Amino acid sequence: MSVAIVGGGIIGLAIAWRLVQRGVDVTVLDDGETGAWHVAAGMLHPGGESAFEGPALGVLMNRSAGLWPDFAAGLGVDVGYDGTGTLGLALTADDVAERARWWARQKLPVLRPSELREREPALSPRIRAGVHAPGERQVDPRRVVAALRDRLAGRIVAKRVESLDEVQAGTVVVAAGCGTARLTGLPIRPVKGQVLRLRGEPGLLRHVLDATVDGREVYLVPRADGEIVVGATQEERTDATVTAGGVLDLLRAAVDLVPQLAEHELAETTVGHRPGTPDNAPLLGRLDDRVVVAAGHHRNGVLLAPVTAELIAGLVADGVADPLLAEFAPGRFR
Amino acid sequence: MSVAIVGGGIIGLAIAWRLVQRGVDVTVLDDGETGAWHVAAGMLHPGGESAFEGPALGVLMNRSAGLWPDFAAGLGVDVGYDGTGTLGLALTADDVAERARWWARQKLPVLRPSELREREPALSPRIRAGVHAPGERQVDPRRVVAALRDRLAGRIVAKRVESLDEVQAGTVVVAAGCGTARLTGLPIRPVKGQVLRLRGEPGLLRHVLDATVDGREVYLVPRADGEIVVGATQEERTDATVTAGGVLDLLRAAVDLVPQLAEHELAETTVGHRPGTPDNAPLLGRLDDRVVVAAGHHRNGVLLAPVTAELIAGLVADGVADPLLAEFAPGRFR
Repeated sequence: MSVAIVGGGIIGLAIAWRLVQRGVDVTVLDDGETGAWHVAAGMLHPGGESAFEGPALGVLMNRSAGLWPDFAAGLGVDVGYDGTGTLGLALTADDVAERARWWARQKLPVLRPSELREREPALSPRIRAGVHAPGERQVDPRRVVAALRDRLAGRIVAKRVESLDEVQAGTVVVAAGCGTARLTGLPIRPVKGQVLRLRGEPGLLRHVLDATVDGREVYLVPRADGEIVVGATQEERTDATVTAGGVLDLLRAAVDLVPQLAEHELAETTVGHRPGTPDNAPLLGRLDDRVVVAAGHHRNGVLLAPVTAELIAGLVADGVADPLLAEFAPGRFR
Repeated sequence: MSVAIVGGGIIGLAIAWRLVQRGVDVTVLDDGETGAWHVAAGMLHPGGESAFEGPALGVLMNRSAGLWPDFAAGLGVDVGYDGTGTLGLALTADDVAERARWWARQKLPVLRPSELREREPALSPRIRAGVHAPGERQVDPRRVVAALRDRLAGRIVAKRVESLDEVQAGTVVVAAGCGTARLTGLPIRPVKGQVLRLRGEPGLLRHVLDATVDGREVYLVPRADGEIVVGATQEERTDATVTAGGVLDLLRAAVDLVPQLAEHELAETTVGHRPGTPDNAPLLGRLDDRVVVAAGHHRNGVLLAPVTAELIAGLVADGVADPLLAEFAPGRFR
């Protein structure tokens, strides 16, 4: 069996890896442009982002979170998978009101400012309340993609696919993120996100910080090497412009949370586009006899890579359609 | 007569141009690194920056401001010399109190918010008061340097000078900005400045804006092509790091002044070092029989380039020491 995967981002590569492990002859066609994974912070929040999303997506996210430790270990190199967990934070009284409902639903005990600062001494004393979510972890998506590319050396072909008719393979898996819309006609729209990378001495922060700051959502993801990823705007726009307002909002929130970050280097300003769908859940499964889709992961592409790889590899290599796939059928919006 | 100029920034090149016009055989030795001119916004504020500086410096600045129109015209290309003038602005009541004394000294009538917005419709309605200073103009330093380099083609040698002993010339003019300290032992220190460049549709702003915003000084210099330079931090530091706090302060002040700038692209973040001296006035004149110094222009290098070129060219080519030079003798701190 020969399978071509269109798209060499974290989803396409993860599927390819799992297929190769099943003995399938896989080729990945990649246009060489960096995808959303290059910008993504790599928060693995199985609950964090699903507050307003359907129960099937919650199941999918939790399953993938459970797969991540083995997925990361299997790559054989350090990809920054870190289990310190996340501090959920609220700066003002209004921010606490906004977050409290969610914390209660997760049954996380609310920590006082002094308890938060015991865990993270660099936090601003202005922060009113927070929680520790040990199950909300992080990984470095750039390292994951580099490791997957190493594993798949020789199987990745530099090629921009203009039409699926060009692709010579018995089965074609379209994992092209936002580009999937152009190739399949499926309703995937780009959702712009601006993300910053700060750099300083390692050790300032240990946890992922996921906060509401004066009504704005912001997260800080500290890497072991001193990099701190600050994200993200969420804009229904297609342009790739780093804007003054976007950077201002992110920096203001970051420095409000951790005042010492003012001295950190602003090392990178980037823009990515999340592949959003009408219900913001991914499109996973058969489109027709030849074409399988694995796209539209919106904000959850990094978290969902392991479960997507398992489900799609099982479908393609073993012919097994996991019942969960029914909830994410690519044709569900027709 | 052969003259070598050490330093190919705006000061060294301006001197070289004036010497060539007097028939002198000039070579410019340049290390290829961009100097403060590359970061500078190019505000020509003969009064704006001298509030706390000595009267001789005020005379020097005014003389140079008077020379700028001919200097710019003589370059034969558009270098962005613009006479629309500057709006001095104050956001809060405290900011007005801070600025009012200075405006009174300059005898500039204070304009109401509605009058300011007639001149600049994009200004925030929160701005309390301002003035129009028609004599405070702007030029684009990068264009000036490019034009001077064209004029001096063939006379600029790529060479980093480690010691003045290496330089083969009857007269050596040291115009090496912060590097002058290393070559001469004179007390010039780098004063770090962070500057942003935003980009958007041309026409949003017409005037230079020079403002106090919640106690912070900030300026916005709009170019004809839609670029808006936002500066500058002033830090007694030698590092070249773009910091989160520096960018945050500049963006916050810029968006407070002109809310629509939030949609502009953040196109460049740069760091430069102003060559400061103990009294923050330049060092101009003979150091010994062979060495002449033209350095230490601190925040005023672009403004002072024409007068520096006239004074130093007169000294070197004609042997005429303008009386004003006595106030800026390089040896005055010994």
